[in-house]
Amino acid sequence: MGSSKLSASLFTDLYQLTMAQAYWQSGVTRDATFSLHFRNFPSNRSYYVFVGLEDVLDYLEDFRFTDDDIEALRNLSVFDDGFLKRLSELNFSGEVRAMPEGTLFFENEPVLEVSGPVIECQLAETFLVNQINLQSMMATKAARVVHAAGGRQVMDFAARRTHGTDAAVKLARAAHIAGFAGTSNVQAAAMYGIPPAGTMAHSFVTTFEREADSFSAYAASFPDSSIFLVDTYDTKEGVKNAIECAQNMRELGHSLRGIRLDSGDLLTLSQMSRRMLDEAGLNSVQIFASGGLDEFSIESLVNSGAPIDGFGVGTKVGASEDAPYTDFVYKMVKYARRPIMKLSDDKATTPGPKQVFREFDQNRTFRGDIIGCEPDADPGDQTELLLRVVMERGKRLQPKTELEHVRAHFENQFARLPAELKALRPQDTYPVALSDKLNKLTRQTMQSLTAVEEPI
Amino acid sequence: MGSSKLSASLFTDLYQLTMAQAYWQSGVTRDATFSLHFRNFPSNRSYYVFVGLEDVLDYLEDFRFTDDDIEALRNLSVFDDGFLKRLSELNFSGEVRAMPEGTLFFENEPVLEVSGPVIECQLAETFLVNQINLQSMMATKAARVVHAAGGRQVMDFAARRTHGTDAAVKLARAAHIAGFAGTSNVQAAAMYGIPPAGTMAHSFVTTFEREADSFSAYAASFPDSSIFLVDTYDTKEGVKNAIECAQNMRELGHSLRGIRLDSGDLLTLSQMSRRMLDEAGLNSVQIFASGGLDEFSIESLVNSGAPIDGFGVGTKVGASEDAPYTDFVYKMVKYARRPIMKLSDDKATTPGPKQVFREFDQNRTFRGDIIGCEPDADPGDQTELLLRVVMERGKRLQPKTELEHVRAHFENQFARLPAELKALRPQDTYPVALSDKLNKLTRQTMQSLTAVEEPI
Repeated sequence: MGSSKLSASLFTDLYQLTMAQAYWQSGVTRDATFSLHFRNFPSNRSYYVFVGLEDVLDYLEDFRFTDDDIEALRNLSVFDDGFLKRLSELNFSGEVRAMPEGTLFFENEPVLEVSGPVIECQLAETFLVNQINLQSMMATKAARVVHAAGGRQVMDFAARRTHGTDAAVKLARAAHIAGFAGTSNVQAAAMYGIPPAGTMAHSFVTTFEREADSFSAYAASFPDSSIFLVDTYDTKEGVKNAIECAQNMRELGHSLRGIRLDSGDLLTLSQMSRRMLDEAGLNSVQIFASGGLDEFSIESLVNSGAPIDGFGVGTKVGASEDAPYTDFVYKMVKYARRPIMKLSDDKATTPGPKQVFREFDQNRTFRGDIIGCEPDADPGDQTELLLRVVMERGKRLQPKTELEHVRAHFENQFARLPAELKALRPQDTYPVALSDKLNKLTRQTMQSLTAVEEPI
Repeated sequence: MGSSKLSASLFTDLYQLTMAQAYWQSGVTRDATFSLHFRNFPSNRSYYVFVGLEDVLDYLEDFRFTDDDIEALRNLSVFDDGFLKRLSELNFSGEVRAMPEGTLFFENEPVLEVSGPVIECQLAETFLVNQINLQSMMATKAARVVHAAGGRQVMDFAARRTHGTDAAVKLARAAHIAGFAGTSNVQAAAMYGIPPAGTMAHSFVTTFEREADSFSAYAASFPDSSIFLVDTYDTKEGVKNAIECAQNMRELGHSLRGIRLDSGDLLTLSQMSRRMLDEAGLNSVQIFASGGLDEFSIESLVNSGAPIDGFGVGTKVGASEDAPYTDFVYKMVKYARRPIMKLSDDKATTPGPKQVFREFDQNRTFRGDIIGCEPDADPGDQTELLLRVVMERGKRLQPKTELEHVRAHFENQFARLPAELKALRPQDTYPVALSDKLNKLTRQTMQSLTAVEEPI
């Protein structure tokens, strides 16, 4: 496909480049600030988890158009040669302020702001929105699943059903941040140091003439980490075969780790399986369940007391099925010294660079947020400022955050979220207000725009 | 992240590799056939478009574990050294039979079958399902949009809202196959030779103190291809500014290509805009609409007679919002000489390699399909065999099909689909039956499995 020679910098919308040429040719090249926020959360979402910053910083640090990129652009017959020469010299020289990865955020809160020469900031929009959209959406879906599982292990089995390979790898990382125990995705496990996880497939069982032979063969290769899939033909017979094999393994000094149920009524089958395993003295053999699971079905199984030790989730989580897109936008809020907003009917924005002030109570539980200007009035004592400078002059200020630290940060954030907002179908909305200063700036900017526009 | 050194061969589920080790260590290494099909279509889907074959063939031709891959696998502390050495020598040496890209398919029909040494076929599952899932889902969503647009242009503006970068690029290609006129995704346009498309963003308009100045600046750079975004502040004022600028352009011998509406009531606003443009003698200036559009809203606008010349679609199409996942499975259907099936409660499969026979009438309209064995009884005259051998001994039999040929093949297929199945909310189901031979083989295999399993 020739893709290997094209850089990530070409992953942009055509209009970013045509606008860049128009900016350049008309001498509109001063500094701007763009703000990334999520307008309206879909139903069943009272919070989102911010993930995707590391990839954004990688992209900005590496931003440049290679000779192959420039050649590809020239072949589109859209751009001016002088502009292509300018592009070939471009990198990202600006500043990024952002929430740390793993931070919870709410409607209309800026999660990331980019400041720098307007062309550089504009060109980055497509990739930034794409990645923050993907990774935050996936982390949020995963956080809901982990919450529903109530302490039971959850494994990411979604690699085959995500929208492409990029989504699969980023989901594995985002889900690990949100508390998943492991991923089946070997590439992601290797890239990020996430624990790999897996059992066996129906195809393995069917390759052998007898189900029992497939279990023995797998156990011979993995004598202490086998999880047998027991539903290929008949689950009860499958559990019997697993028990027989587990008893043979025990005689050899090994132990079966678990069995997996992948179809049928998981509550009834897990109860039957637990009883059969316990009666055979195999109390330590765990029961894993999979097959079209999401946070809703997992919550229902957990509430029913199903004796399931871990869940493998794929399709519905991998596609964030009940909320498969977000409303993230990257809007210009300042150009040169002028605060900027747009007034479109249903998509109005607020002007100027911003800060998010999070207030918490004496138990450190989140009480509510204020979206303010940057800078704004001094906040109270029990307030955190969520946006921090992470990149200056195109360079990271800190090395990458260890994945386990991001995971711990998310865990801490989630513990501080009011319990009623953790519900899978939340009835409450987290309080988010605008500061007095931001309200005033919004009114002023709106008046000045109306004043400018009306006489035309 | 270190990803650059890891090959696509590592994009696999852990269990593919643990099963491979167990196969290898237990001497189960004969040839198998795996069949890829889609079990149950979601609501509002009466057909799917098969796309993704070219990437699958690329992947299989290039399949091998690099030294870095092997090192990454060793670091997982899961695999035997002898097995890792075997893996390092592996490539794909088998056969692929598949429908041509752009072919319409229906429930339970195999779209692709892979035959070869069981380990090679098994390892490919995750990537194959991931890509066929993604690309066929996106092509199908796009085909619905094109149908709804009734001849008006449709452009892919989804790059920022797809699930990651892989999805964005594959969507652009799939949507072009399904009839989209262009894509905003510059990387995809460059990779596949798809026409690039775009207008301008609100940020461009807001950078200038007056909306009219932003239009003039853009027109100076793109005097014959400008499409002005008119809804940043007030759509009526925006259209007035566009008209003034278009009149200035005309005096210089140029012409405005169009305006874009991105918010509000698109029917009313397009009627107002058309009237204003026509009254100014700008009949050739086109009206484009965007903003959360999908096939349903486009059909509604078209049916209302909205004077819109083209649609830009993003979010909902990019995430295939109403059907964001598929039920594609890759199942073993033969091992050595033995037909294979599984009997799980809700996921039973049929055994053996297969062929799809498509019957058509004297107008070449599709009448119905028969899923049969490979080989099966001779089909009638007005029947096409859909699965063809495309790879032997790990090598493509033909060079890649030109994208425009795939596009033409889809167009031909869609023209032959009965009209009632093209509806966005179809009431009918396309007839798909099993051949006598396949029914018989299924019964026999089921009996032999029951006979083997019961005595245990």
